[in-house]
Amino acid sequence: MSQVRIVHARYGKADVRLVKVSRAGDTHTLHDVNVAITLEGDFAAAYTEGDNRQLLATDTMRNTVYAFAREHPLDSIEAFGAHLARHFIATGPTVRVAEVRLTEYPWQRITVAGQPHPHAFTRAAGERVATVRGDLAGIVTTAGVDDLLVLKTTASGWEDFYRDDYTTLADTNDRIFATAISATWAYCAQADLDYNPLWIGVRDQILATFSDHYSPSVQNTLYRMGRAVLEHFPVIERIHFTLPNKHHLLFNLEPFGQTNANEIFQVTSEPYGLIEGTVERSDLQ
Amino acid sequence: MSQVRIVHARYGKADVRLVKVSRAGDTHTLHDVNVAITLEGDFAAAYTEGDNRQLLATDTMRNTVYAFAREHPLDSIEAFGAHLARHFIATGPTVRVAEVRLTEYPWQRITVAGQPHPHAFTRAAGERVATVRGDLAGIVTTAGVDDLLVLKTTASGWEDFYRDDYTTLADTNDRIFATAISATWAYCAQADLDYNPLWIGVRDQILATFSDHYSPSVQNTLYRMGRAVLEHFPVIERIHFTLPNKHHLLFNLEPFGQTNANEIFQVTSEPYGLIEGTVERSDLQ
Amino acid sequence: MSQVRIVHARYGKADVRLVKVSRAGDTHTLHDVNVAITLEGDFAAAYTEGDNRQLLATDTMRNTVYAFAREHPLDSIEAFGAHLARHFIATGPTVRVAEVRLTEYPWQRITVAGQPHPHAFTRAAGERVATVRGDLAGIVTTAGVDDLLVLKTTASGWEDFYRDDYTTLADTNDRIFATAISATWAYCAQADLDYNPLWIGVRDQILATFSDHYSPSVQNTLYRMGRAVLEHFPVIERIHFTLPNKHHLLFNLEPFGQTNANEIFQVTSEPYGLIEGTVERSDLQ
Amino acid sequence: MSQVRIVHARYGKADVRLVKVSRAGDTHTLHDVNVAITLEGDFAAAYTEGDNRQLLATDTMRNTVYAFAREHPLDSIEAFGAHLARHFIATGPTVRVAEVRLTEYPWQRITVAGQPHPHAFTRAAGERVATVRGDLAGIVTTAGVDDLLVLKTTASGWEDFYRDDYTTLADTNDRIFATAISATWAYCAQADLDYNPLWIGVRDQILATFSDHYSPSVQNTLYRMGRAVLEHFPVIERIHFTLPNKHHLLFNLEPFGQTNANEIFQVTSEPYGLIEGTVERSDLQ
Repeated sequence: MSQVRIVHARYGKADVRLVKVSRAGDTHTLHDVNVAITLEGDFAAAYTEGDNRQLLATDTMRNTVYAFAREHPLDSIEAFGAHLARHFIATGPTVRVAEVRLTEYPWQRITVAGQPHPHAFTRAAGERVATVRGDLAGIVTTAGVDDLLVLKTTASGWEDFYRDDYTTLADTNDRIFATAISATWAYCAQADLDYNPLWIGVRDQILATFSDHYSPSVQNTLYRMGRAVLEHFPVIERIHFTLPNKHHLLFNLEPFGQTNANEIFQVTSEPYGLIEGTVERSDLQ
Repeated sequence: MSQVRIVHARYGKADVRLVKVSRAGDTHTLHDVNVAITLEGDFAAAYTEGDNRQLLATDTMRNTVYAFAREHPLDSIEAFGAHLARHFIATGPTVRVAEVRLTEYPWQRITVAGQPHPHAFTRAAGERVATVRGDLAGIVTTAGVDDLLVLKTTASGWEDFYRDDYTTLADTNDRIFATAISATWAYCAQADLDYNPLWIGVRDQILATFSDHYSPSVQNTLYRMGRAVLEHFPVIERIHFTLPNKHHLLFNLEPFGQTNANEIFQVTSEPYGLIEGTVERSDLQ
Repeated sequence: MSQVRIVHARYGKADVRLVKVSRAGDTHTLHDVNVAITLEGDFAAAYTEGDNRQLLATDTMRNTVYAFAREHPLDSIEAFGAHLARHFIATGPTVRVAEVRLTEYPWQRITVAGQPHPHAFTRAAGERVATVRGDLAGIVTTAGVDDLLVLKTTASGWEDFYRDDYTTLADTNDRIFATAISATWAYCAQADLDYNPLWIGVRDQILATFSDHYSPSVQNTLYRMGRAVLEHFPVIERIHFTLPNKHHLLFNLEPFGQTNANEIFQVTSEPYGLIEGTVERSDLQ
Repeated sequence: MSQVRIVHARYGKADVRLVKVSRAGDTHTLHDVNVAITLEGDFAAAYTEGDNRQLLATDTMRNTVYAFAREHPLDSIEAFGAHLARHFIATGPTVRVAEVRLTEYPWQRITVAGQPHPHAFTRAAGERVATVRGDLAGIVTTAGVDDLLVLKTTASGWEDFYRDDYTTLADTNDRIFATAISATWAYCAQADLDYNPLWIGVRDQILATFSDHYSPSVQNTLYRMGRAVLEHFPVIERIHFTLPNKHHLLFNLEPFGQTNANEIFQVTSEPYGLIEGTVERSDLQ
């Protein structure tokens, strides 16, 4: 009989939905977070023998998230995730790697009569994400944005591309460029950073670069956004982008005797282009 | 053999995804809309005999949306919907009712160096909706918001409710109130209104009222929001709300020796309360 | 100040997710149901005054579903829903109408070595639905199917339809007809019926009729399916269908020197046609 | 100024929705597939310089899928994917790796009067997946199942697990085990295999093993299913599973004076456990 073994064994808890309200007098702050935890370690006895003695229940992981939220601030998901990652490596009991993935849903205060309200909020667009991966050597922190929808109505084209027997697409130097930016960037320092202004700064830089050039391709804009982030933020080692190309097709109005000077578009959700890439410092090992 | 007949026959096209870009010099405006059309009329021959001669193809309805977007402004979805509704009643050929439902996805200009960008945008939260229902008697216009997520961290309770044998819930005078507001309001005048400032005003009023009182129930807050809108906007006849109660449960931290003074919450998506109601002027027929 | 009032006030609990396991010796049966409850009644004091004394908590409704599942069989969702509807009218305390909507997710036994397994199951496709609406006059029961995906590769066309200035679609007498059948039918008798074989019979009839004719339109097939159900099931008063037209477009292969004899199709999800209608007995009041 | 570079650059087309109908006399066969293509190669000039001359348009990739579906059978997605992968490596022009991911949605013939219908179908549950990854060294083929929902009502427990300060969960030796099996297995031979009976055999083996033992943990059942597949299918090198633990919680009926002998369960979707692992032959390099 052939011999088999278990590899890449890992497990955890996903979609732990946590809201923390902090009350400083009458003014409340709100953090709304989704936490997922994955542990790697010496779990072979559980997988192969059904021996659970070295397994932490995923229910315990959930409890830990809520208990830690009581003890630790949630001001930055990066710092909160680090507390959790260090805990799971320490308590394991055989855990070698603890990965904590966090998504924060942004809320902004409702403005009433020109004043921000002390305890009423509306949900804002987009998501802030972080992944804290800990092992015996330390902690690696990545931050990111997810579902950041952007669109420019011009200053985008697609020309002089490679053509083969199956190519029918025409060149264009004026099209809509729409995407849902998903970006994650790795911080090089292990020391604690001031994650909140960094996150805002990176997000603003991505938006500014998206806006500032004629885009010959999603690929080139991806590179430009990454390069700009690395140039402005020395604590970032590399940044990865996933950019779906949300196609907006010029609708053919000729049958109705109408022109269409890049004005009327049909939005299509499928199929879609998907462009990925990582920009990193050349001097990294 | 029993005799049968067709009733409630209607058909149309849904999910027509339209983007219109208007170019005034270098500054572009962007409208991103989902249009659905439903026609009612004398379609019995088609249903019962397979005779299509009185049926407009749904493909034609789609074409009409794009062609009309070329000819008419998209500044307000209410006005654009009225053009479409009138057209389908006129062209039918046997159409008695044309209902056009529109959802607008809001985009805001990206701010670069403190300035709004002329042609780059990010998607904002929430959705603006409108339904224009036309028949031989005229046009009825409703406007609304959808998926407007709001949350208040206090000033909400649920006490002194009816208790029966299956009741286990305790009274509380301090809980999180979170919901996704879906509201639609009917304009009483058939004359053209200035729909954009009206929509902003109603939305602001809903948010202000959501924030301004101790809520003894979702039901009472629903009523207060509706009453405030009717009091401030005489052109509105009635307003309907659908308010899912997005439950935030206090997480039990006692097993870990911790207190929880309305600070740490578990968000649950199922099951959820669902509260509905219409507030209307008492003097309506 | 204008006077306003609350109308169409109703509330309840949605997405109550219930699984019941019945154990008859070693052979288990499984029922997996989603229950939603909506109550209508004299709730004005709650909406307008914040007086909750006549409101049953939606949390209590959830408890009731689980407690009733312990006391009553779940063999048919129609019968289980009737128990709940009667209870809420009786216990209200001011409830005039109780509507219970149920969706059952079907599971089938895993077959191992040709034998159905006594306690292991896989999920089957489609959903069975029922709505039980009770008031002081009695109970009205509707049953249905949801998300029943069907497709025929031929024997479907769309010809001789009405053409206007915006029509570009060509006639065809051979196209793919694909839809997700959503149907609900009302039982005329208030006496208890044998709901399970009825449901299977109606579903089979819908599928048989979908398959048995050349379809000149979705509209005509809708009518034929409804008529066949009414002819074969005298206890059914009427049946309503919602049929999205899931368009399969012939892909243009000419640029590659290929023919396409109704063989290669591009599936599109948006926009889509949406066809509705109710077929009922002519002698109904 | 710091130097940066582009790495992990890849792009492609996703959600290419293809239906192929094959007509052998009156009996039609139907294949309904979602194809995604990702290319890796020397794309640096495009990313860093905006030079598109070495980029194939993702629109061309889409065209290629449809044109290849005309020329090649779709009897197995593994074989069809191989045709596409080889083409993109050859045509690139600078492509080093072409990954083709395919999902097939299963349809079964409608049975009318005991006979399978020649051209009418209903959609069955679950999804069949394959990934064909080609590079200059050859082709690697993996096959799999996705969204295969299974549940057993007993013969599952969770006992004697590791307990720490945050553990509250009690031991149980009788719980519901419900999951959505996602499994992918790699074929060792590069020669063409008879993929269809292999896929059915692996799926059946997974279901049989899921059913045949007392499960002390999701982890152990994962391992058992993997080991059984490798023992019965020598052409498979390894198999990876992702198993979300769809928790079914015993509902507390004590407040209503009821017992609950593993009969009445509340289904929860969040949070959920997530168990992963790969089982592979020990003699692999």
